[in-house]
Amino acid sequence: MGSIITLLTDFGLSDAYVGMMKGVILTLNHDAKIVDICHQVESHNIVQAGFIVSTSYRYFPDGTIHLVVVDPGVGTERRAVILKTTKATFVAPDNGVLSYIIDEALGSDEEGLSQRRLGGGIRAVSISNPRFWLSPLSSTFHGRDIFAPVAAHLSLGVPIQEFGEAIDSLITFPILRPQIDEDGVLTGHILHIDRFGNLITDVRREDISSEDITIELSGNQNEGLSKSYAEGKELLAIIGSSERLEVSLRNGSAASSLGVRIGDRIRIKTRG
Amino acid sequence: MGSIITLLTDFGLSDAYVGMMKGVILTLNHDAKIVDICHQVESHNIVQAGFIVSTSYRYFPDGTIHLVVVDPGVGTERRAVILKTTKATFVAPDNGVLSYIIDEALGSDEEGLSQRRLGGGIRAVSISNPRFWLSPLSSTFHGRDIFAPVAAHLSLGVPIQEFGEAIDSLITFPILRPQIDEDGVLTGHILHIDRFGNLITDVRREDISSEDITIELSGNQNEGLSKSYAEGKELLAIIGSSERLEVSLRNGSAASSLGVRIGDRIRIKTRG
Amino acid sequence: MGSIITLLTDFGLSDAYVGMMKGVILTLNHDAKIVDICHQVESHNIVQAGFIVSTSYRYFPDGTIHLVVVDPGVGTERRAVILKTTKATFVAPDNGVLSYIIDEALGSDEEGLSQRRLGGGIRAVSISNPRFWLSPLSSTFHGRDIFAPVAAHLSLGVPIQEFGEAIDSLITFPILRPQIDEDGVLTGHILHIDRFGNLITDVRREDISSEDITIELSGNQNEGLSKSYAEGKELLAIIGSSERLEVSLRNGSAASSLGVRIGDRIRIKTRG
Repeated sequence: MGSIITLLTDFGLSDAYVGMMKGVILTLNHDAKIVDICHQVESHNIVQAGFIVSTSYRYFPDGTIHLVVVDPGVGTERRAVILKTTKATFVAPDNGVLSYIIDEALGSDEEGLSQRRLGGGIRAVSISNPRFWLSPLSSTFHGRDIFAPVAAHLSLGVPIQEFGEAIDSLITFPILRPQIDEDGVLTGHILHIDRFGNLITDVRREDISSEDITIELSGNQNEGLSKSYAEGKELLAIIGSSERLEVSLRNGSAASSLGVRIGDRIRIKTRG
Repeated sequence: MGSIITLLTDFGLSDAYVGMMKGVILTLNHDAKIVDICHQVESHNIVQAGFIVSTSYRYFPDGTIHLVVVDPGVGTERRAVILKTTKATFVAPDNGVLSYIIDEALGSDEEGLSQRRLGGGIRAVSISNPRFWLSPLSSTFHGRDIFAPVAAHLSLGVPIQEFGEAIDSLITFPILRPQIDEDGVLTGHILHIDRFGNLITDVRREDISSEDITIELSGNQNEGLSKSYAEGKELLAIIGSSERLEVSLRNGSAASSLGVRIGDRIRIKTRG
Repeated sequence: MGSIITLLTDFGLSDAYVGMMKGVILTLNHDAKIVDICHQVESHNIVQAGFIVSTSYRYFPDGTIHLVVVDPGVGTERRAVILKTTKATFVAPDNGVLSYIIDEALGSDEEGLSQRRLGGGIRAVSISNPRFWLSPLSSTFHGRDIFAPVAAHLSLGVPIQEFGEAIDSLITFPILRPQIDEDGVLTGHILHIDRFGNLITDVRREDISSEDITIELSGNQNEGLSKSYAEGKELLAIIGSSERLEVSLRNGSAASSLGVRIGDRIRIKTRG
């Protein structure tokens, strides 16, 4: 069956690791359509991978299988899981990499729990049935030996309960959220820096009540919201393609220019 | 329908931008065959993207749809266009990125116009019908919201006039061409530097009347044309795979070694 | 026919070279399934490419066609070949890049010959019939002009003898092998360094008789074998995903930390 399987890893593109996973999938399901999301996630950066999968999966057809293999705990007792929502199926280590997906499906978790209880149309299983794995099983490359063949079998229509026992919670990391103080000043955070050096924040379009704002970041002040990268001033704020506030430098990298890092704070004051 | 859609962008491979475009295309046309040309175009480098698409499109089947998204003006009033030639269909911003394609289809433009009038079997439309776009439309990522869905609908057979009004000219950049002086010395330019550091020029095979030539570049002199990279001397000149004169360093990067940049001049003297 | 063709090159991802090869293949066989193994092989590094293809081809379905284009001798008299084993078909320059494949199929060559005589179910032809090539033929890009169209015709079922005359030997490079001295100390070599900085050696699982070992590398000593990257000490030894001994640094690059290079020696002492 021609199901779509997407791949998101930190394996880079200078080894054959990604190619091997594709070989395993195609051996089991010759008609699978494999799409690369990104393989340049920083080594072991679960938060970055979590952000990337959360911004991309919604653009794929319903029922797409998303493999997320950023897995510093490979070979330990950490669980491997399948998470099924109404929109998509995710196959990943249970290390927090699906935090944004769960947060979005279950609604915001004000307590920043490190373990989220599932429900509301979301189901998960722990991948424990070795029938669907490669054998022999390596202790260093479950992307090839467990995640890829499980995704291939899922794409062939094997129901998720065949892969292991149902589980009712998954590990999550606390998700940064903007906070508003008593003076109405919003404090958000840099979530992601893209190839262009654009700074993507956790502040959503709906968090900003007016375009008449002042933004403070890394000692710089900026007025207003731009309508496009090109029409903005040198340094500009804009609602970007993930419906979040971005800070961008025209013809340059805002990240390098401001020396900003992921997690840094940004303050937004609304005037009038 | 299993049409081929190629992608050429400056989005890099460390974000999910390219993956999202693929998701949008496959959601609309599950059978589209998507082929990456290159996503490592320098940020906003329209001239580099224009060269790359012009050297690659001819190797694809007739009717292939080529998406070129190097789009510094995204979100401004710049037009998005579909250009249809007898060989292929191109979907791109109207910012000059199709200059080489137009030049090749219409013949050399001696005046270096910044706007070329179409004709001779080439048709174009301005993409203005929002029926084929994603909604809501972002102001920063038309690759995902306009270009990808338009390409997908084209691949399903929607005729180009459905996407917007016919236009009779497109923006072009002046194309560098070698010039010959009264002593018969040809002055060309470096158009592209590839991964190996090979220097690809605008001098075509037919511009060189003999193999008995002397080449001057960046203070170096070189005699003759080599038949292969390996059989040449250290620094060598050769007719490369795009039928253009290349300068190459055996087992090294000619670009680094000579300190040459795109746009630099090269002089070719024919002896005898 | 929907045959799988894999691509392994040193062309990088910043040019259209790989895209052009895909266009050529799809023009001849619209249903070919093309899978990238890796295009970031170091320029002209035949040994690295040889290692990568040897670790990946086994994960693809029987009969997969593997294109390996790391070809510093392009345009010279070096032969282009098709090698057919019981598992797969390889298309490559005859420059040693298939050494590991041949070694594995024919068994270890204790003499380190630079030319291996074939036999035992392995067949090869020299690609000499221009009927299957692009025309005109460039002298710098046989990946596009010879290897890609030959792979496409193979995927359509053209028998290998149509492409040229049978040959009974191929060029190989000497394959590093661990050696054991009179005290039972094993001396191996670093074969490959991956994206994570893991050091993959030529020491196989079966070369190590006990987990009670001491490893010496670049002046460092290490005791025992770890069961996973995460459970190991800072610097750890582990049997990796290619069934070979690897040295890895937890949360870092063993290669950078130790200053190790490909070809460096590693000593393994078994205690007790």
